Amino acid sequence: MGSTPKPLALPPNTSLDAFSRFITASQAIVGHENIHIVETKDELNDGSYYEPPKTHDPHHVLDQDYFVASAVINPRSVVEVQSLVQLVNEYRIPLWPTSIGRNSGYGGSAPRLRGSIVLDLGKYMNRVLEVNVDGAYAVVEPGVTFSDLHAYLVKHGLRHKLWIDVPDLGGGSVLGNTLERGVGYTPYGDHWMMHCGLEVILPSGELLRTGMGALPDKPNKSGTTMDQDPGNKCWQLFPYGFGPYNDGLFSHSNLGIVTKMGIWLMPNPGGYQAYMITLPRDEDLHAAVDIIRPLRLQMVLQNVPTLRHILLDAAVLASKDRYTSDPTKPLSETELDAIAKKLNLGRWNFYGALYGPEEIRNTHWTLIKKAFSAIKGAKFFFPEDIKEYSVLHTREKTLQGIPTYDELKWIDWVPNGAHLFFSPISKISGDDAMLQYSVTKKRCHEAGFDFIGTFTVGMREMHHIVCIVFNRKDPASKQKAHWLIKTLIADCAEHGWGEYRTHLALMDQIAETYNWNNNALMRFNETVKNALDPRGILAPGKNGVWPSTYDRRKYKL
Amino acid sequence: MGSTPKPLALPPNTSLDAFSRFITASQAIVGHENIHIVETKDELNDGSYYEPPKTHDPHHVLDQDYFVASAVINPRSVVEVQSLVQLVNEYRIPLWPTSIGRNSGYGGSAPRLRGSIVLDLGKYMNRVLEVNVDGAYAVVEPGVTFSDLHAYLVKHGLRHKLWIDVPDLGGGSVLGNTLERGVGYTPYGDHWMMHCGLEVILPSGELLRTGMGALPDKPNKSGTTMDQDPGNKCWQLFPYGFGPYNDGLFSHSNLGIVTKMGIWLMPNPGGYQAYMITLPRDEDLHAAVDIIRPLRLQMVLQNVPTLRHILLDAAVLASKDRYTSDPTKPLSETELDAIAKKLNLGRWNFYGALYGPEEIRNTHWTLIKKAFSAIKGAKFFFPEDIKEYSVLHTREKTLQGIPTYDELKWIDWVPNGAHLFFSPISKISGDDAMLQYSVTKKRCHEAGFDFIGTFTVGMREMHHIVCIVFNRKDPASKQKAHWLIKTLIADCAEHGWGEYRTHLALMDQIAETYNWNNNALMRFNETVKNALDPRGILAPGKNGVWPSTYDRRKYKL
Repeated sequence: MGSTPKPLALPPNTSLDAFSRFITASQAIVGHENIHIVETKDELNDGSYYEPPKTHDPHHVLDQDYFVASAVINPRSVVEVQSLVQLVNEYRIPLWPTSIGRNSGYGGSAPRLRGSIVLDLGKYMNRVLEVNVDGAYAVVEPGVTFSDLHAYLVKHGLRHKLWIDVPDLGGGSVLGNTLERGVGYTPYGDHWMMHCGLEVILPSGELLRTGMGALPDKPNKSGTTMDQDPGNKCWQLFPYGFGPYNDGLFSHSNLGIVTKMGIWLMPNPGGYQAYMITLPRDEDLHAAVDIIRPLRLQMVLQNVPTLRHILLDAAVLASKDRYTSDPTKPLSETELDAIAKKLNLGRWNFYGALYGPEEIRNTHWTLIKKAFSAIKGAKFFFPEDIKEYSVLHTREKTLQGIPTYDELKWIDWVPNGAHLFFSPISKISGDDAMLQYSVTKKRCHEAGFDFIGTFTVGMREMHHIVCIVFNRKDPASKQKAHWLIKTLIADCAEHGWGEYRTHLALMDQIAETYNWNNNALMRFNETVKNALDPRGILAPGKNGVWPSTYDRRKYKL
Repeated sequence: MGSTPKPLALPPNTSLDAFSRFITASQAIVGHENIHIVETKDELNDGSYYEPPKTHDPHHVLDQDYFVASAVINPRSVVEVQSLVQLVNEYRIPLWPTSIGRNSGYGGSAPRLRGSIVLDLGKYMNRVLEVNVDGAYAVVEPGVTFSDLHAYLVKHGLRHKLWIDVPDLGGGSVLGNTLERGVGYTPYGDHWMMHCGLEVILPSGELLRTGMGALPDKPNKSGTTMDQDPGNKCWQLFPYGFGPYNDGLFSHSNLGIVTKMGIWLMPNPGGYQAYMITLPRDEDLHAAVDIIRPLRLQMVLQNVPTLRHILLDAAVLASKDRYTSDPTKPLSETELDAIAKKLNLGRWNFYGALYGPEEIRNTHWTLIKKAFSAIKGAKFFFPEDIKEYSVLHTREKTLQGIPTYDELKWIDWVPNGAHLFFSPISKISGDDAMLQYSVTKKRCHEAGFDFIGTFTVGMREMHHIVCIVFNRKDPASKQKAHWLIKTLIADCAEHGWGEYRTHLALMDQIAETYNWNNNALMRFNETVKNALDPRGILAPGKNGVWPSTYDRRKYKL
């Protein structure tokens, strides 16, 4: 017991002695080999996308060991997690659950509160519990990645029947991404909307099933692989159940640890065609967005398409120094024009896809081409039209739910590339998009960064994703990136815009912008938090929600 | 003050003196003329669909005055409701909010707890606050009916741009129906999924705006009519906001009084064609449901279609005594065959619609016809093919969001007709549908009732709606109806099926079937309820959730 090493960062308000006793008790639950204490800064390895660290944020905009765990625990089952939750209640030690830790740009596996225990669910709890063809859904544990789920479909000969929806990169957790309300690009791009049914360990340690999952288990006839058998239940078929619909409480949240999730899969639409439309001028953004709005509302644009700035595509193809002789400055208009010419792209490039039988694809394509042809110089491409590698060849896979890793490359835009995402919501309106673009571009340039961004088009709004790429080994670059995102949050709040998701370091600032009626929302969130987690053991500070056991002012950044 | 009359039913644990003081204080808030005390049983008038009573349930399966209000209060504004909520906290008197009270079959405006104050929001708070064409949404107050919203679109020349989604009858509250997770029949049939942004008065009296509504108000350029101006906010464009997504807590719920709601409207699809497919045999239900499942998943069936039992259509056209010489017994198979022949309908009749340009409609129709042609004797109809009035002529309106009242008529199947809905969720599977049909039909016949039902097809499940029509002036008929629904709930729970919504009298029983892991869901709901409503003033017992200030056993039915 006395042999527990001192961690680099102890949990808040916890003595080394208490920590040691906690670790010993945890070892009895998960086994000695499934606990790793983070002892020194030297062992913090930023790893890679393929081997993400669980100890800290590899895209550290603050010091590398600012958001650092005291220990990483790998539970092997729901029951072990329940026992650990009871234990942290006893010791009042904060727990930070993580699934995979590949949510790059938002903090990875790192805890908001230094010295928290990182609960790495993904290592063992990584089974595809069920894929149901008739119901077109899957049930997954936290450690199932988009690539895993796709591979499962391929292996079981189901890929011709069911597609997954995948974000830009395939390595993230399906469950984790959905709970963080991440998006993909097929018609099933709104992952949260497409989830159905959760199993959750509450801060009390108690196990809850939401929606129809609250019906009792029944004998089963269909041979599913679920831990406990759902029998006739429509757990993954009907989201709402009876009584208050509680699922939303477990998204963006520190109110429970989700251990199983149903996710709807897309039936093979019976035909598919990806396309790209290039728009030559910077100001074409305005017309493009006004063209997109009615087409998307009508579902002529059937999927979640993206309108990408030239540099996002350029960065996938090569690092900045290949495009300019002075990579210390933002690229000039002339340089951007040269890149567009070289890559045969527009200043903005629109990526979408057509789904369904040929008649339906043709009808939609005719409408889309006609609408975008109002923009002078707009060009239309299918993947097969382009000989050399183009981002369209990658998007052609993404937009049919095939995971890829090609877009990892844009992080290498600068040396020792790391990134932060700034993600405000915008109306689908030319005026709003242009204003948000100009406000954000101006600040990017002030910080000495290029504007690299994309508009991801939902049904009635766009997730505007600004990629802030910085050199994580250069303190000045990190400082500028941090200044930039803080300034962007403040600027956008002034315009009435809010962000949909953020990095650990910005959670409080963004939560504070959602302050209508003297912070009514935060008071509500805190009331629920304190009722469900009276000892404040689960992910304190997540998305700005602090339990009453912590003084938020003390942890302000 | 001494002039307050004694109500027929005092609020629980409230003396006449306290009640009188409460009424006097309420009069100071809303004005004398906006409070009505329910004094005698004689004044309870069951009214009609067009003039629903606010005092009690007009479809009373128990005694007419069992679910009865002590008083009905008509607040005129959000601020008045806030003041009333503070007042009931002081007096610990339960408040039961209602919007319109036309949720026939589920309890109307009546409170779960006898003697509650019915807060009739619909009388004054009935404005369409905004219709936004670019964003394709409306913002409504509780008193806006589907017919009101449709009329607003027509009046402002917007109906050619935007459609609403409407349930079978047009008189209900858009907001109330959505919060109860009601459904309609266009592609926007899942009303809860299509809502975006709520304004809620919490049990503390505090005002909350969810999602992007929590961003501060900003100067406005676009001339909206909102009370407080949303400026650039995407309150009705993006549902989730930042942090836990709390909206679901306010559906099926007693956690807040919703005073404003955004609802997405459907852009005119650019073409429309309703259709009916008649299926001759009782057992065709099996094949039909298995045909429907893949078509619906593929969105070849674009809307929420319905598969209706012959008697639901027959009852719209005439009362039972017109079809049989002995209306005291369930109709025989021979009589059902005769009705089908007479009405030129099938035993089951499938109602759907095609949306979009002609090429798209034709493609879908070809696929649908081909699939259903596998059922021998299936016949295909457009409304224009049928000369005499047919239910298809009504559905032709409903499925394009035009409110109607024709289907009111089936309640007159028996004399003094009233009804209860029994609404279990079913998989979209022939086996499940047949089993649920046979289990429910058997019990209907045991109770001496006809089976009258419909399957409403969502994306991956069906709402099976069994219409229990009884004579509300015949105690024996009422008793049988009550026995029937209680028995159906128990039978279906045995099969693993749960209901999506229910009448006041059955809320506890159904909530108790959602009892997985020793009632984990109910403990969770109660924890949240007690934290947000410590005095238990808001709708105690709603959907089975009782605050700790009431002993649920005392109110068990």
